Amino acid sequence: MWFLRLNMTDRSYKVEEVPEKYRQLGGRGLTSTLVYDEVDPMCHPLGPNNKLALAPGLLTGTMAPTSSRLSVGAKSPLTGGIKESNAGSSWAPAMAKMRIKAIIVEGQPEDKSYWTVKISLEDGDNGKPKAEFFPADKYVGRDLYEVFPEVYEEFGDKVHLSAIGTAGEFGYGNSGIAFNDMRKEPNRYSGRGGLGAVMGSKGLKLMVLDDKGAPGVEYADKELFKQGAKKMREALTSHAVTKPKGGLNTYGTAILINILNEAGGLPTRNFRDGRFEGAAQIAGEAIFENNKAITGEEIYNHGCSPGCIIQCSNTVYDEDGEEIVSCVEYESDWALGADCGIEDLDTIAELVKLCNAYGLDTIETGVSVGVAMDSGVIPFGDGEGALDLVEQMGKGTPLGRVLGGGAAMVGKAYGNPRIPAVKGQAMPAYEPRAVKGIGVTYATTPMGADHTAGYTIAPEILNVGGESDPLASEEAKADLSRAFQDTTALIDTVGHCLFIAFAILDIPSGFEGMVDEINGMLGTEMSGDEAVAMGAEILERERDFNLKAGFTKEDDRLPEFMKIEPLPPHNVTADLSDEVMDKVFGK
Amino acid sequence: MWFLRLNMTDRSYKVEEVPEKYRQLGGRGLTSTLVYDEVDPMCHPLGPNNKLALAPGLLTGTMAPTSSRLSVGAKSPLTGGIKESNAGSSWAPAMAKMRIKAIIVEGQPEDKSYWTVKISLEDGDNGKPKAEFFPADKYVGRDLYEVFPEVYEEFGDKVHLSAIGTAGEFGYGNSGIAFNDMRKEPNRYSGRGGLGAVMGSKGLKLMVLDDKGAPGVEYADKELFKQGAKKMREALTSHAVTKPKGGLNTYGTAILINILNEAGGLPTRNFRDGRFEGAAQIAGEAIFENNKAITGEEIYNHGCSPGCIIQCSNTVYDEDGEEIVSCVEYESDWALGADCGIEDLDTIAELVKLCNAYGLDTIETGVSVGVAMDSGVIPFGDGEGALDLVEQMGKGTPLGRVLGGGAAMVGKAYGNPRIPAVKGQAMPAYEPRAVKGIGVTYATTPMGADHTAGYTIAPEILNVGGESDPLASEEAKADLSRAFQDTTALIDTVGHCLFIAFAILDIPSGFEGMVDEINGMLGTEMSGDEAVAMGAEILERERDFNLKAGFTKEDDRLPEFMKIEPLPPHNVTADLSDEVMDKVFGK
Repeated sequence: MWFLRLNMTDRSYKVEEVPEKYRQLGGRGLTSTLVYDEVDPMCHPLGPNNKLALAPGLLTGTMAPTSSRLSVGAKSPLTGGIKESNAGSSWAPAMAKMRIKAIIVEGQPEDKSYWTVKISLEDGDNGKPKAEFFPADKYVGRDLYEVFPEVYEEFGDKVHLSAIGTAGEFGYGNSGIAFNDMRKEPNRYSGRGGLGAVMGSKGLKLMVLDDKGAPGVEYADKELFKQGAKKMREALTSHAVTKPKGGLNTYGTAILINILNEAGGLPTRNFRDGRFEGAAQIAGEAIFENNKAITGEEIYNHGCSPGCIIQCSNTVYDEDGEEIVSCVEYESDWALGADCGIEDLDTIAELVKLCNAYGLDTIETGVSVGVAMDSGVIPFGDGEGALDLVEQMGKGTPLGRVLGGGAAMVGKAYGNPRIPAVKGQAMPAYEPRAVKGIGVTYATTPMGADHTAGYTIAPEILNVGGESDPLASEEAKADLSRAFQDTTALIDTVGHCLFIAFAILDIPSGFEGMVDEINGMLGTEMSGDEAVAMGAEILERERDFNLKAGFTKEDDRLPEFMKIEPLPPHNVTADLSDEVMDKVFGK
Repeated sequence: MWFLRLNMTDRSYKVEEVPEKYRQLGGRGLTSTLVYDEVDPMCHPLGPNNKLALAPGLLTGTMAPTSSRLSVGAKSPLTGGIKESNAGSSWAPAMAKMRIKAIIVEGQPEDKSYWTVKISLEDGDNGKPKAEFFPADKYVGRDLYEVFPEVYEEFGDKVHLSAIGTAGEFGYGNSGIAFNDMRKEPNRYSGRGGLGAVMGSKGLKLMVLDDKGAPGVEYADKELFKQGAKKMREALTSHAVTKPKGGLNTYGTAILINILNEAGGLPTRNFRDGRFEGAAQIAGEAIFENNKAITGEEIYNHGCSPGCIIQCSNTVYDEDGEEIVSCVEYESDWALGADCGIEDLDTIAELVKLCNAYGLDTIETGVSVGVAMDSGVIPFGDGEGALDLVEQMGKGTPLGRVLGGGAAMVGKAYGNPRIPAVKGQAMPAYEPRAVKGIGVTYATTPMGADHTAGYTIAPEILNVGGESDPLASEEAKADLSRAFQDTTALIDTVGHCLFIAFAILDIPSGFEGMVDEINGMLGTEMSGDEAVAMGAEILERERDFNLKAGFTKEDDRLPEFMKIEPLPPHNVTADLSDEVMDKVFGK
């Protein structure tokens, strides 16, 4: 197992055997530990001393179902804290099969040049990874939908791609890292926290991964592993949310639109309301029914990465049956839809496509446009205006740069205190005033406002993994959020998609299966509790990085406007006390 | 003595007798204590829970020379911490003579309307202050040089004015509060920290102070006071820097241009160099000589406020003998000159005038334009381009809004880590790599990078108040900075102009005079040490506010680029350790 270090100052590389202390880590656990160990918490995120680390999950590249997640880590230019941003694509399993445990990108060119790095294996058994650098000028400043086919042309169509768009070149706090989906399009993203800008600051425009000759992963106890993967598979294929033709496979993640709207927790028009009158038109059900009406067939969703059972990626077609984009996730649908007051699905799909073309995070983009609308730049509901704003972001006009800085920058530029963000990162699609537990997660996760960091929506809204009243302002929300944050850190470390949580929370043998997989992979004898404790340890490390970067408990707070402005329809404020927030990481 | 509270939510007001605990405070000591006591450190600076406090110094309005300073305080939208911003004008003595110890502006209109408030005294002996509110729509969005004459027309030409420009209306982090100078022009500023935006967020466009019938200040021991004022006057009129036709009266504050340039500490082209090849052309000496060549006479400077002995405000004339602006301070001259690579004095004067017209802080503006130049928006040295950028700031174009957010926002919008700022506030005209003590002040003052907060330039560059090698990276710089920060907090509290420091540092009887003034005013028997201890206490209170707002010692650091990029001509980096920085507020 190798660490591959790319030095972008002089375009050299080093291959290292993975040191003992990192061997039982993968994914988020590995990237966060590398960032913790190697990055000065006080460095400028876009300076030469930040590092970008990419690591497949511990179980990625194996026969474990739905386990093809990649973690990308660095100090975030959006939050100023540690960041792990997670994507599903073919990249992670390829990297794992090449036995590259992490790629660590260091330094930066003094001349601000842009490069493509091709990573492949030396010939021979157990070939070490190697890196080659090529000038990338021809790809700079362009739409990634144009760039990707040319890169496949240049490097062959068996490779896996990772790239930044213009957003990353411009150094935006809102800039992701794109990966190819199964159709070789730039539709998969490590979107959050501005990691595209970190990659861009290192002069790295593109990474090409050629896994030819990859030896595949090694198992310590393959039988135990297979037994675990089987339990996991059974859980996923039997749970209503994750099974074939189940909720996610049929309606995609956008199935949540109607559910959150019903709960009064769908943030609408820059978090001015918890219900959107256009919800039904942009819901997952509408996407499924529209596609059926247009194409004449029931189109079930596809996977974002190899080996996925859940298969939740939809495709949105226009009225002529032409594909607009794949896919429109719940978060994107909400951010560019309800949060902007836009109820036209085609417009939302076009906005998603523009985000992918330019390398923008859809959540941060939608919320930034929402804050701009709230500040009077364009009216709420103005789809054409929103398309223009996102184009300006991709082109780097001054207004595009304001928006590219993220929702907090838009609020500052327009003197608007209604900024739905924590630690500088825009909130996702769940109103923290109406769903108290997710508010605790937003406030306290070291990542900045992030639903994936501790998805209490499961018990609060979906009645998965127990039940918790979303509107109850109670101390118990601290423990609930923390339990989800610990488990999530574990799942992000092993490389399973977070959506397995639905099944393993409700089906105990599913969770056992994951623990068996881990033990089978590592040759350990961890209990379930010990596995979760590993997650907790990673989370504490991330928080510690942030403390060293100057964060305090005062950064673990929801924005003031949510405390003083009641949210319809429940007319609730963010009323959990500071003490509850502090309990999450309190001793 | 009264507190006048203006409630901008419903345009009502309250007059309160000054509570005992505030009676021995004035200026910065009073505004910072009021902000500490009444403002939630976690509130949004532009939300309804911030407050704006204005207070004349303890000795303001008296016969003490050069004592007409006003402190304005609030939570800063630029830094997110406490802010005191200090201006000399006729406002402060008028307020003191009306026995209004503080004006405290609270709340905000829900309809975002703008108002003028007129403050005057009820008829009769010892009349209480009263407030009247008038719609200010007609003044919104306009150049303050047009607005001021109309306001004098409306309210009579004996009143004193305070106003925000468009910068404050737009909510810029870079927005000051303007006051009239002695010619009734909007040339005096509480410039730093975005307090104009706080005033704007409260719907307050203008304040008109009518001191008709003001009873004047009361002295506890008038004889002692007179004795102190005499000593102070003697010190000021005998020191080479402050005496009539001395350094400041002849060349203005811009006398520092050549001195800092010689020392290699004049930040040039966004802090890329410590020497500017055009320094001589923009120096105070050049202003004096140019004016002489143009007008045929030696023009000595004038005062910014009544009762000033030092008289350091210059006027810059164009080649036809028409006044461009008054005055061009050293900081403005440097920020809009050397820091932007601009060596044309007329252009610099025009840039200053634009800043005054729009309500912008000249320091933050110059550094923001410098960062924009460093990011390739326009080239260094492009005077026409700089004029265009500042006009865009005043008009609120998208690029103007990026710049209006301050230097840190420009850096973020353009992905440029070379941001010369601390706590989000742009550094003034002394290179902290070449003058180590001022770097400690920049890093550690609760105000964000600020030279006035602890002007170690006196011993480091001017050999005033001792000598300290500017290039010596030594622990002693922590104590040096702290001593200056304590004394400055005292001077800002009593309301003397900071420039008295030159005289009282070198002439012991001058310092004694200030202590006599304080004791004569308050009826106390404070020693000099006790007076400075009062300054230290105020400083600690400000720091405590910041800690409650989420600041840590990690905020007391110079930017990373200064640690890794050597500065010509001395090729020095910011190499004082974190421990030295922490010593300033360490126990």
